[in-house]
Amino acid sequence: MTSPQPISDLFWAHWKTKTMLSAIALGVFTELAKEPLSAAEAANRLRITPAAVTDFLDALVALGLLDRADGRYTNVPESAEYLDANKPATYLGDSYLAQCSGWADDLTNVLRTGEALRGARDGQDFYQAVYDSAESTRAFQRDMTALSMGSALAIAERFPWQQYRTLADIGCAEGALAGQVLRQHPHLTAIGFDLPQARPGFEAYTRNLGLADRMAFQPGDFFRDPLPSADVLVLGHVLHNWGREEKLQLLRKAHQALPQGGALLIYETLIDDDRRRNALGLILSLMMHAEVPGGYDYTGAECRAWLAEAGFCKVRVEELDGPESMIVAIK
Amino acid sequence: MTSPQPISDLFWAHWKTKTMLSAIALGVFTELAKEPLSAAEAANRLRITPAAVTDFLDALVALGLLDRADGRYTNVPESAEYLDANKPATYLGDSYLAQCSGWADDLTNVLRTGEALRGARDGQDFYQAVYDSAESTRAFQRDMTALSMGSALAIAERFPWQQYRTLADIGCAEGALAGQVLRQHPHLTAIGFDLPQARPGFEAYTRNLGLADRMAFQPGDFFRDPLPSADVLVLGHVLHNWGREEKLQLLRKAHQALPQGGALLIYETLIDDDRRRNALGLILSLMMHAEVPGGYDYTGAECRAWLAEAGFCKVRVEELDGPESMIVAIK
Repeated sequence: MTSPQPISDLFWAHWKTKTMLSAIALGVFTELAKEPLSAAEAANRLRITPAAVTDFLDALVALGLLDRADGRYTNVPESAEYLDANKPATYLGDSYLAQCSGWADDLTNVLRTGEALRGARDGQDFYQAVYDSAESTRAFQRDMTALSMGSALAIAERFPWQQYRTLADIGCAEGALAGQVLRQHPHLTAIGFDLPQARPGFEAYTRNLGLADRMAFQPGDFFRDPLPSADVLVLGHVLHNWGREEKLQLLRKAHQALPQGGALLIYETLIDDDRRRNALGLILSLMMHAEVPGGYDYTGAECRAWLAEAGFCKVRVEELDGPESMIVAIK
Repeated sequence: MTSPQPISDLFWAHWKTKTMLSAIALGVFTELAKEPLSAAEAANRLRITPAAVTDFLDALVALGLLDRADGRYTNVPESAEYLDANKPATYLGDSYLAQCSGWADDLTNVLRTGEALRGARDGQDFYQAVYDSAESTRAFQRDMTALSMGSALAIAERFPWQQYRTLADIGCAEGALAGQVLRQHPHLTAIGFDLPQARPGFEAYTRNLGLADRMAFQPGDFFRDPLPSADVLVLGHVLHNWGREEKLQLLRKAHQALPQGGALLIYETLIDDDRRRNALGLILSLMMHAEVPGGYDYTGAECRAWLAEAGFCKVRVEELDGPESMIVAIK
């Protein structure tokens, strides 16, 4: 008989998300960052009912978010770095990505009607809604940091930064990519290019990282204005928001702005060429259909063709952290 | 630098659940059970917007729920068996387990206040609410089938059924365990024991399996009434609903009802003895705290001690499918 286990695993997957979200909401990781606690101490400190606290903390151990030794709980390195609210430079616990719990019904509706959420007709509508208030702008920027952090760290390590001196991150949001790269490479300076509304979030983030003197914000619209010039231009989680024509337009503008020998660095939840393995790349593409009609995620092979059309010669595709990949194209 | 990937994986987990739920809601698996379809045919047949249908179906391929060959999509064996609504005997797509999307907030509240959902003080309150209407009774029974199917199939294969002739499933819900066992072992007959309200669901399920002549429903309350007698008594996902005293009471009653040499078979999302690995067992225990205060999941070591206290001699613990285990105790 066929086991239902693959289906059960998917049924259960969201309970795991929700258990982590409860732990974030209750401040578990922030409190344990101060000192290891027993279950009883954690119950008292975090105001968690003693009847359930041990199961809760042990569930977090089993999910790989806590360690336990001699009856005391501590953060694993990942929780210490990314789920401690007192580390604003790296905290990801306020990301909205995991919390839009109505999304499944939305997805069903989008698939059924072809009508995107909030009446959006393209990415412009989406960004207009996002940048409508300072609050939604910040929330969106935090999400982008959460989405990009793994890639940012991997790119900081693997891209040959020693060959370059300047980078410009096009559609930089908070500036997570440039910030993480500059932390590792003191010889670099960076420009963050984004709509003017992105400035306060960018400046808060770079200040938190202690990088305000090496990272400058340049306001602009990447469709209307020329792109900044730099040795390396970065387009991270940008191209997938747009249709084929806009994608090509951005690649052509990047080619124009780069010096000869300069590099365009694209990172994305790239779909595998055979469209069989990277579930998250495909799911992100569905989110694009829902949020920015016309936008879609793509494979490395598709992007190579667009880059050739835009005039780039040498192109390589490399897998990064988890479901993410980078594409490097040399002018 | 520490990669945020383990946290990102958990953030993303619920998107995977929700993508599957959309596919169930849109009837993807039920339609593909009739014949393989191209993306365009699927869009037309299922009324899915052509703009997103390929990403959607490829995401389901990447999630392991569909296969694709020559541009046509088919169900994998698991989807064909469990997600085709035209197979009522095995369909799990109507399970509520994955769909209570408010649960994270509920969990946070329960952990904070120690007050269970819907004012429940113990399992009795929970069952009173569940059995309040025919609709909620059926929904609960469907959930129990979804929760138990993997164990039921594994137990049908691995338990030495050839040594026994009768079983009684105590708290049988729809009767999934007994039904799946009897499908594989024609020499067996079974009693399903549960509250009277469980009868219609039990009878519909056993009829769907073509087992109505070998499975009988016996109404009763396992705290107030004597348990039925049979060579094998089964307690599946029952003990975890209750506190220590009630757990022991049920084990003692099972011991009493069994003939000498008879077997008590317990299956449960058993927590590993070290309480470090089985995240789902621990999460289910949190669900018990939320739904049936006093109830909790437990380890094999804990259960061995209770079984000894109840008079059982030979006890063995065996891992089953996914996060589930069975405990076999001989009188």
